[in-house]
Amino acid sequence: MGEQFVEITEKKEVEAIIAHIATEVAKTRAQTGTFVENVNVGEALGRVASADIFSALDVPPFDRATMDGYAVVAADTFYADENNPSILIIRGSLAAGECSSHDVERGYCMGIATGAPLPKGANAVVKVENTAEYTEVVEGEEVKRVKVYKPVAPVENIMLTGSDIKRGERIARSGTTLTSRETGVLAACGINDVFVHKRPTVAIISTGSELIAPGEDLEPAKVYDVNAQTLSDSVRECGCSPLFLGIARDNLEELSERIRESLETGADVIITSGGTSAGAGDLLPKVIEERGEILVHGVDIKPGKPFIFGTIQRKPLFGLPGNPTSALITFNLFVAPLLRALSGIPADGAGERITNKRIKAKAAVRIFSDRGRNEYVLVNLVPAKEPGEGSFLAYPLLTGSGAITTLSKADGFIFMGKGKEITEEGEIVDVELVTNLFASKKRY
Amino acid sequence: MGEQFVEITEKKEVEAIIAHIATEVAKTRAQTGTFVENVNVGEALGRVASADIFSALDVPPFDRATMDGYAVVAADTFYADENNPSILIIRGSLAAGECSSHDVERGYCMGIATGAPLPKGANAVVKVENTAEYTEVVEGEEVKRVKVYKPVAPVENIMLTGSDIKRGERIARSGTTLTSRETGVLAACGINDVFVHKRPTVAIISTGSELIAPGEDLEPAKVYDVNAQTLSDSVRECGCSPLFLGIARDNLEELSERIRESLETGADVIITSGGTSAGAGDLLPKVIEERGEILVHGVDIKPGKPFIFGTIQRKPLFGLPGNPTSALITFNLFVAPLLRALSGIPADGAGERITNKRIKAKAAVRIFSDRGRNEYVLVNLVPAKEPGEGSFLAYPLLTGSGAITTLSKADGFIFMGKGKEITEEGEIVDVELVTNLFASKKRY
Repeated sequence: MGEQFVEITEKKEVEAIIAHIATEVAKTRAQTGTFVENVNVGEALGRVASADIFSALDVPPFDRATMDGYAVVAADTFYADENNPSILIIRGSLAAGECSSHDVERGYCMGIATGAPLPKGANAVVKVENTAEYTEVVEGEEVKRVKVYKPVAPVENIMLTGSDIKRGERIARSGTTLTSRETGVLAACGINDVFVHKRPTVAIISTGSELIAPGEDLEPAKVYDVNAQTLSDSVRECGCSPLFLGIARDNLEELSERIRESLETGADVIITSGGTSAGAGDLLPKVIEERGEILVHGVDIKPGKPFIFGTIQRKPLFGLPGNPTSALITFNLFVAPLLRALSGIPADGAGERITNKRIKAKAAVRIFSDRGRNEYVLVNLVPAKEPGEGSFLAYPLLTGSGAITTLSKADGFIFMGKGKEITEEGEIVDVELVTNLFASKKRY
Repeated sequence: MGEQFVEITEKKEVEAIIAHIATEVAKTRAQTGTFVENVNVGEALGRVASADIFSALDVPPFDRATMDGYAVVAADTFYADENNPSILIIRGSLAAGECSSHDVERGYCMGIATGAPLPKGANAVVKVENTAEYTEVVEGEEVKRVKVYKPVAPVENIMLTGSDIKRGERIARSGTTLTSRETGVLAACGINDVFVHKRPTVAIISTGSELIAPGEDLEPAKVYDVNAQTLSDSVRECGCSPLFLGIARDNLEELSERIRESLETGADVIITSGGTSAGAGDLLPKVIEERGEILVHGVDIKPGKPFIFGTIQRKPLFGLPGNPTSALITFNLFVAPLLRALSGIPADGAGERITNKRIKAKAAVRIFSDRGRNEYVLVNLVPAKEPGEGSFLAYPLLTGSGAITTLSKADGFIFMGKGKEITEEGEIVDVELVTNLFASKKRY
């Protein structure tokens, strides 16, 4: 009777404990040098740079025309206008990718295409729109000339060598998650492969004698295991590799065996779900205590109170509640930050990505929370008619029953602390999104 | 001199033309039945369901205890309180995953763990917290009894058969992008594989005699090809498979050959970049006209005006400008919607995900746009100090020069239409995000 959890830890302290372990583990990974790998830029999308990346060359590598037109000595055009065009003799033309074999002198010019390197002597490009080409016969020979109707300043319509990226310049910081934008910069610098953090591997164990795997026949008193799938995919959504080790029934031997197997796989993190309630709740702590240390056993939030965290052979081990909603909340609050840290995303914000995972919404109805509880309320988001801060309406989802459909409708969750029992209809709330995709407008 | 584009099309009309072609192509794919594949739920993350998915069973499959305690006949507890507990004889106990071999009658109860199926005869569960167990010796035999201190109503602490998901219920609509939440529901229903849309394949061709591939040695007058990488990764970010076919120099034969190759690969869409400017600009239209139809040649936006769209052997073909910024903007505006449609995401919003790709920001400085132009201005986002609608400050990036570093700093773009020449400092703007990740707070 009464309180099942000997020592409830405050959420903030839990976060501090996990952050400390994350730093330790990241340090070990760095020291053993096993955390990096070299990948082709073509496969680098979404990976995290494990070192600063520098450019070995200037971009552009030469003074480059940014317009189609004529390479000129700017001073030749200074007094040009519609009525008194400057007239220059054209000596050849230059396509993109070609080098000039001769220089441009005063009184002369050269046709030039966008992207071509500026020939020596020239210091500006006149746009083709501001010119008219013509041919004259001088002493029996055809001479090509161009009328220039508008003056250009030196360096006009030219991109100077290294003006985009300088040789030796840092083009990405260690810890940057590479998107199509960074891979473009790498390509521009001619970089073909990069060092990135290895994806942390996460062993996942489901516990519960009532669980069977999807695809198998449903036996009496059994239910299909949900958490193996949702946790594996949540781990993937964090950029890590899940490794599902199967279902352990509620006995010490099976659980102990599964955890031993996880350690053998070399997984960086172990996650179990289920088996944290009063009935089967003593098994996981026993297994951890045998070979490791329990650091958290119970946290002051709802849902998610039976959350367990510890280390076993210096590997972080999370014991999440079996209820899918509780598992989701505790995964997002406690596991995801550790996985991000192990993925190489720095905690100090240097080079860190700001994700748009938190948005403002308007409470669609009054939302109640239990007195004296730090409660997370799952919400479904629906686009509001008026734009602005409350562009979305947040509808609370009932979470008590452990319904899996509740989980699938949850776009995110809001926090109602101990002193906050009621959120009024229309109040603006911060919603922590579960994934970057919202639930659909029309479902089922 | 003057206008290079015979017929500039309005952006809205371009969108309508592309949407029409997208519908046609999606129809062809559906008719030929080549657009679906069956994948294991373990690999279904991020894929789009190609048909409605129904549950073949009730979830939970039986009346299930949601608390640890005692399965009782509720009426036996109706008058119980702290001073006058109901006393029931305990006949056995039931762990999760076990079936009861006998029923519960009035005056009796059965120990039950969370998740176990309710034994016949019982209609409620009393929480263990509200009970006290004791043993009495009656006529020489030990009898286990329990005192119940609080009444329970029928169905209390029970999740009824099918109350979460009913057999035959639709659990996901055709067109739903599967996240960890949907895969969890599939798992709960014991579903092991699903039909999803095949990822559309997109052939990518870079054009320009000045281009060489990253990793190769830089020759004089050459620059590294950026768009092959950024477009490939942008295609991946849209959930499609890129297929890079190499660089075509600025001549009709090479470009024609590359496009012939793209068609042979069976790619669903072809994207070229470069070769749309005045110099090399006639090549792509010529190739398209030979075997297909040009539908758009020039659009009234900046940057991105030389955009080309057509079909060739009924495949959509996009000719994007070579300038990386212009390529990015036109990709986001015109290519991405077609790729989403071909990926099976329905246009009518049924089952569609709302992505949080558009956010509000505050203009950090005055932003200018050209008079009479529909201009897209790339912006870098920086978190603002005060929260609220302008949680981010938007700084405009200069795009004229075609700098690749500009591209890498761009978190998104804002639109300034023909009538909008100035956005005032502090004005709230809609930012269309380029990816779901923002640029870092501290860069370079």
